[in-house]
Amino acid sequence: MKALLIVAHGSRRQVSNQEVSALAEQLRGNPEADFDLVEAAFLELAEPSIPQGIEHCISQGANEVIVFPYFLNSGRHVTEDIPAILDEVRPRHPEVCIVLSQHIGASPAMPALVLQTAVNPA
Amino acid sequence: MKALLIVAHGSRRQVSNQEVSALAEQLRGNPEADFDLVEAAFLELAEPSIPQGIEHCISQGANEVIVFPYFLNSGRHVTEDIPAILDEVRPRHPEVCIVLSQHIGASPAMPALVLQTAVNPA
Repeated sequence: MKALLIVAHGSRRQVSNQEVSALAEQLRGNPEADFDLVEAAFLELAEPSIPQGIEHCISQGANEVIVFPYFLNSGRHVTEDIPAILDEVRPRHPEVCIVLSQHIGASPAMPALVLQTAVNPA
Repeated sequence: MKALLIVAHGSRRQVSNQEVSALAEQLRGNPEADFDLVEAAFLELAEPSIPQGIEHCISQGANEVIVFPYFLNSGRHVTEDIPAILDEVRPRHPEVCIVLSQHIGASPAMPALVLQTAVNPA
C-alpha cells in the first residue's frame, strides 16, 4: 500500500495550510494518482508534523511512503531539515519504505508551467 | 515590448535566489515564451527588489510588465504585499501597463505536476 505525503512549510495563516490539504484531497480523488493514500503534513507552524503524517499513513496500512517536498527552492528545508526528519523516523518503522522525492521546484516542467500561469491575471 | 518579471520571496541563501535567476534565464531562451524580456526580482532579503525589477524592464523598453508571483500559497505576500508594491510603483510609470498575474500555486496544472514530480527520488 503506497502513500503520498505532501510536505509543505506550514504557515501561521490557516488558509495557506488548508490549500495544501485541499491539494492532497484533490489528488486523493484523481484516477491518475498511483497512490492508495494521499496526505498532507507540515515542516513547522502547523500540524500534522512530518512524523505524524508518516505515522498516519502507516496506521492506515501504508508500507511505502513517498515524502514529497512542496517547496519551490532547494533551500535548507529541502536539502537538510526534511532528510534529517526522515532519518529520525525510519528506524521506528523498519518495515516501511520511506522515500524522499524531488521537490516541486525541481520539476523540468516548471518553466512551462510558469509561462502558462503568467498569462492569467490575478 | 512585453516583460515577464518572476517575483520570488528571496532568501538569505544565495543559491536559492540563483535558482530563480536561472529560471528567468531559462525562459529568456525559450521560444514558447511570448515575452521580449524575462527578469527575476525578490520581495525581500535579496535584490533586485520588485520596484528595481520593474524599472529594469522599463529601462530596457518594456511598456507592459507582467508581475508573476513565484509562490505556492496565496498567503499575505501574494494577496497583500505584492499588490501594495505594484500600487506604489504604477503612479511613477503611468505609460507602462503593470499587470499582476496568478501565482504559480494557483495553476490548475499543479496537481498533475505534483504527481509527475513525486515519482522521482530526490
